[in-house]
Amino acid sequence: MPAHRRLRTAIVGATGYTGMELVRLLCRHPAVELSAITSESRTGEYYSNLYPHFAKSVSNILVSQDQLADYDLDLIFLALPHKASMGFVRQHGIDRAPLIDLSADFRLQNIATWEDWYGTEHTCREHLADAVYGLPELYRPAISEARLVANPGCYPTSSILPLAPLIKAGLVSPRGIVIDAKSGVTGAGYKPKPSTHYPTVNEGFSAYGLKRHRHTPEMEEILTRHSGSNVTLQLTPHLLPVNRGILSTIYAAAVNGVTEERLKQVLHSAYDKEPFIRLVDHPPSLDNVRGSNFCDICVALDERTGIVLVVSVIDNLVKGAAGQAVQNMNIMFGIEETTGLGAIPLSP
Amino acid sequence: MPAHRRLRTAIVGATGYTGMELVRLLCRHPAVELSAITSESRTGEYYSNLYPHFAKSVSNILVSQDQLADYDLDLIFLALPHKASMGFVRQHGIDRAPLIDLSADFRLQNIATWEDWYGTEHTCREHLADAVYGLPELYRPAISEARLVANPGCYPTSSILPLAPLIKAGLVSPRGIVIDAKSGVTGAGYKPKPSTHYPTVNEGFSAYGLKRHRHTPEMEEILTRHSGSNVTLQLTPHLLPVNRGILSTIYAAAVNGVTEERLKQVLHSAYDKEPFIRLVDHPPSLDNVRGSNFCDICVALDERTGIVLVVSVIDNLVKGAAGQAVQNMNIMFGIEETTGLGAIPLSP
Amino acid sequence: MPAHRRLRTAIVGATGYTGMELVRLLCRHPAVELSAITSESRTGEYYSNLYPHFAKSVSNILVSQDQLADYDLDLIFLALPHKASMGFVRQHGIDRAPLIDLSADFRLQNIATWEDWYGTEHTCREHLADAVYGLPELYRPAISEARLVANPGCYPTSSILPLAPLIKAGLVSPRGIVIDAKSGVTGAGYKPKPSTHYPTVNEGFSAYGLKRHRHTPEMEEILTRHSGSNVTLQLTPHLLPVNRGILSTIYAAAVNGVTEERLKQVLHSAYDKEPFIRLVDHPPSLDNVRGSNFCDICVALDERTGIVLVVSVIDNLVKGAAGQAVQNMNIMFGIEETTGLGAIPLSP
Amino acid sequence: MPAHRRLRTAIVGATGYTGMELVRLLCRHPAVELSAITSESRTGEYYSNLYPHFAKSVSNILVSQDQLADYDLDLIFLALPHKASMGFVRQHGIDRAPLIDLSADFRLQNIATWEDWYGTEHTCREHLADAVYGLPELYRPAISEARLVANPGCYPTSSILPLAPLIKAGLVSPRGIVIDAKSGVTGAGYKPKPSTHYPTVNEGFSAYGLKRHRHTPEMEEILTRHSGSNVTLQLTPHLLPVNRGILSTIYAAAVNGVTEERLKQVLHSAYDKEPFIRLVDHPPSLDNVRGSNFCDICVALDERTGIVLVVSVIDNLVKGAAGQAVQNMNIMFGIEETTGLGAIPLSP
Repeated sequence: MPAHRRLRTAIVGATGYTGMELVRLLCRHPAVELSAITSESRTGEYYSNLYPHFAKSVSNILVSQDQLADYDLDLIFLALPHKASMGFVRQHGIDRAPLIDLSADFRLQNIATWEDWYGTEHTCREHLADAVYGLPELYRPAISEARLVANPGCYPTSSILPLAPLIKAGLVSPRGIVIDAKSGVTGAGYKPKPSTHYPTVNEGFSAYGLKRHRHTPEMEEILTRHSGSNVTLQLTPHLLPVNRGILSTIYAAAVNGVTEERLKQVLHSAYDKEPFIRLVDHPPSLDNVRGSNFCDICVALDERTGIVLVVSVIDNLVKGAAGQAVQNMNIMFGIEETTGLGAIPLSP
Repeated sequence: MPAHRRLRTAIVGATGYTGMELVRLLCRHPAVELSAITSESRTGEYYSNLYPHFAKSVSNILVSQDQLADYDLDLIFLALPHKASMGFVRQHGIDRAPLIDLSADFRLQNIATWEDWYGTEHTCREHLADAVYGLPELYRPAISEARLVANPGCYPTSSILPLAPLIKAGLVSPRGIVIDAKSGVTGAGYKPKPSTHYPTVNEGFSAYGLKRHRHTPEMEEILTRHSGSNVTLQLTPHLLPVNRGILSTIYAAAVNGVTEERLKQVLHSAYDKEPFIRLVDHPPSLDNVRGSNFCDICVALDERTGIVLVVSVIDNLVKGAAGQAVQNMNIMFGIEETTGLGAIPLSP
Repeated sequence: MPAHRRLRTAIVGATGYTGMELVRLLCRHPAVELSAITSESRTGEYYSNLYPHFAKSVSNILVSQDQLADYDLDLIFLALPHKASMGFVRQHGIDRAPLIDLSADFRLQNIATWEDWYGTEHTCREHLADAVYGLPELYRPAISEARLVANPGCYPTSSILPLAPLIKAGLVSPRGIVIDAKSGVTGAGYKPKPSTHYPTVNEGFSAYGLKRHRHTPEMEEILTRHSGSNVTLQLTPHLLPVNRGILSTIYAAAVNGVTEERLKQVLHSAYDKEPFIRLVDHPPSLDNVRGSNFCDICVALDERTGIVLVVSVIDNLVKGAAGQAVQNMNIMFGIEETTGLGAIPLSP
Repeated sequence: MPAHRRLRTAIVGATGYTGMELVRLLCRHPAVELSAITSESRTGEYYSNLYPHFAKSVSNILVSQDQLADYDLDLIFLALPHKASMGFVRQHGIDRAPLIDLSADFRLQNIATWEDWYGTEHTCREHLADAVYGLPELYRPAISEARLVANPGCYPTSSILPLAPLIKAGLVSPRGIVIDAKSGVTGAGYKPKPSTHYPTVNEGFSAYGLKRHRHTPEMEEILTRHSGSNVTLQLTPHLLPVNRGILSTIYAAAVNGVTEERLKQVLHSAYDKEPFIRLVDHPPSLDNVRGSNFCDICVALDERTGIVLVVSVIDNLVKGAAGQAVQNMNIMFGIEETTGLGAIPLSP
């Protein structure tokens, strides 16, 4: 690709929140042309008719997936539901254009675990080996050469980022980690459901998916790579009455002799040069990162109990989805990594 | 007291949320007369001028604490800040009228622990031995004979209720319990602060008081009574963008051989006859209990990890404060325990 | 009906918010037995299984409408959608038991206007003449003798209460009245829709139904009765990001020579003895009335512009629906009017 | 100023919401250097220590106003409280650097009216004649030559933009206009107050400043310039439980013979080429514009009543304050007007 022309990109399935967020970021990215946005149900309509906040900013007309063949694309983002993505990859392959898949379909290498937790057969095993887990702070070199990036889940992003360096450095036990995670409602999708009806969520708060949230094996597989032994953890997600954001409160047993200073030192050493990771002294709030690609992390050691406490926050739609995908794109195409991701958090 | 006349009660310090909630409950209690409400700063004003939602319902004029001597009282509720309550008790004693203290001043029997966590000297040690911890489901007989009831904290209520039977039955380990607790903003008090300014809280969410929330030793002391050994636990409170409610997500290591069925059985056996405790099959939401004296509890065992999960919800101002105080009053005076506490949760 | 036995009541259609609120009020009403709750789609289920916040309070099993014949009922509440109510009345008549209909089907006497605004034929004209508009503060005597009460709409309740006395006294012009009304989301119903999806409503705010909200002719017809001439008004409803409550800001041209004092005098004279109407000096907030049957009203005259300003608040599910229905029931059966409606507003 | 170097700017008073929003926009503006940020109370501290969401983005250390003399500034933004701004202008004049004042001190030309509504003497009358009202869509040429721009109020921006063309074209009566306006809580300022305490605002909604909001004369003075006669209007502001945004619902009497089509035509003709004004067919919601500089406008005519309805939305901190200030800066310095203001609304 000549340096002087813009990357030609397409978003497959842009009517959900993740797709909308990709449009928001890509349409202002200086090195990108948003060539095509697909929707099977709204083909032919102006995207800004569906989502009027894009008026005077996005002039795309929705096309069908079949019409993608008409575009000479440099990169395709898949913002499809879980299980639909692997169908697309199986059908189109990865040779024509590299892909960044925002679904869960290529995140696990252990296919048996994937099939167990997702309750279905994996229909595109042939490309699993091509998939690189798209967490830039951990896998930047592999991402830069990937043709298929599996963009991480939102809960895993918020938990793996703080835990991986601590586990790798042997400061916390890899077993019995508790992740008490809380997500804004956009994490539950664009489609209205009883559980996301306004009067149900507002002034409410509840846990869901006890024992069986599908991000559990994703976290375990990735963290195990950074540990000497198998990582097991307990993830309990909760639905917060806010639009955006994930806050994860993490509890892990400190290894003997570890100090709070040492915990901070290891995280600083891992992340001080990272543009999107910020270590903070006070427990961060969701609005520290809203609308931005930052992940803010606070760590503490309770010497009374020997438990390491971590609190991390991200915007689930940005660092937890679309922003991370754009960061991966930048890495894949040699664009400065923060390009198009410079927005200051919208606070308040 | 003759059976036919109403209990004469006073609320000392009714300008905070807890005091307001006591007024709300007592002014509709069929066996109670709300004889006096005190406020040193607003003496002489109509209570309903301060809080116009009480207009046409509450006609009290605020009096000073000194004026209480003019009333022939059967019971005094102390809705004072921590440390102010013990001053009142020291000055007035417990002989003239029994007291229900909603502060933390008489909740711990271990005075050294109290002084350590509250950072001050306890100035009314002479009445510590008189104080009964006012959690009716655990201490009903002692409450019925008490002249000084230490009404439990909101976080402890939500955690001790589910944990006490499980610990007593030896089903979970008393060590390493994690309590990830989330509270609505009324728990942070009536006085405006930067941390409770609307744009700070709304669309935000954060942890606070890492490692050092004062309800920790309260939970540990009470639970230790029900265990064969010392209970230690990790409490992390969070501020939720809602007005009312506490949800506690509790993680404890299952003792070998325990089943989910056994956990449920023990809780059912403890609470099926309790009017305000409800065991539920699905993780409860805050609005299941809003405005009511209920505590809803859900328990599960993750066999994969061996961790017992408990989710409990209460309204922090009702079962977590004023409602529990009224329940204690009913027990102390032989009134049917649910009297004045029959309100159905206001949902949504 | 003997004085000593409880009223036997049924709620037809109790799976929406209005029906749930009727259950909440009736199950604690000391003079009422909630004999039957109907649902065609959930017949045979425990009501508290559908709505777990009713556990340990409501033991009813849902029955079908056909099964109502098995009950000896004193009163039936219709909490059906608009247009379904008139079908019920046509089929069952009003002789067996009096009815309080919470839909719009019998609120207008002008059938042509009704058919125009509701876009359908009225299928039960034979009972229109029996219907009494159930706004107790204006029509108490007729309600006490009615066999069919048309319970008012939520917006009309909030607007007619302040306007009727002012119009009747000739203090404001009956023409060109502007009602800028804002409602919480429970007013939009129990069924999830894109417009009530949490992320759509939260941090949002918008007008809807410009020019054509169906409560417009209801207000005009009732207010015209209290005026010497036809009342026309402009109603613009908005959707507020709160669960409960309606606030109406009303603008009307002052008649020459009117003073603010005179406006207040007329409202005081109309409402000082009413248990549920409160005139307030400062603009009221929704939470002054949440969960209660109160309507709070503030009136002012801007002498600079000659415009009379009124702000009124109600809880749309209580005084705007179920609470008003219970008030009507009390009047119909000679029960003290505030019975079962004494709850203090839940604030905050 | 050479074309190739960045504008050197300072923000005086950046610890309130308006100042924070200026920092957010200016620190990412490609033609601007944010040379100095002042705060008298926090001089010497890192700005990002006060507001941690700016970490890794803004490295400024706060300076005092006195230190501004050390900077060679091209432009100064005043984000000071009302009345403090005129003191600054009086002291420093407008010769050293042009000023954009975000307070109300220079918005009215009629000094008697200003002193009446603001209740104080104007202490900098000598610069009133220099002040240009900074609403770019109406006063672009004057702004481009101004040395003192009076940045409009948030309510006036939302109301003047739709009304000015309609009044100028003679389509609506200049008298008796009703503006029912609703603002998010950031409009009430950064400092915690009882009225902005979370539990007071959340699930609440109320009007304030009946009859006497200070933006009334600002709207009247500006709109009168565009009318053949004096404009009088009734502004009622309300406090919405959201962080950002103003929605104004406007009612004006249609002049005889006006059609809805004609109203739309006039607005389209005025605004189709404006980058930040969007005419929409459906009533807009606050989240259509959140975080952006857009103003969305919907107009309708109710032929039944002869009333013209307008609904407009802006983000009070962007188009209602800091964004508009940046737009003015761009105009003053010949920078493309949308530079630094391209952010897509953050929805949801």
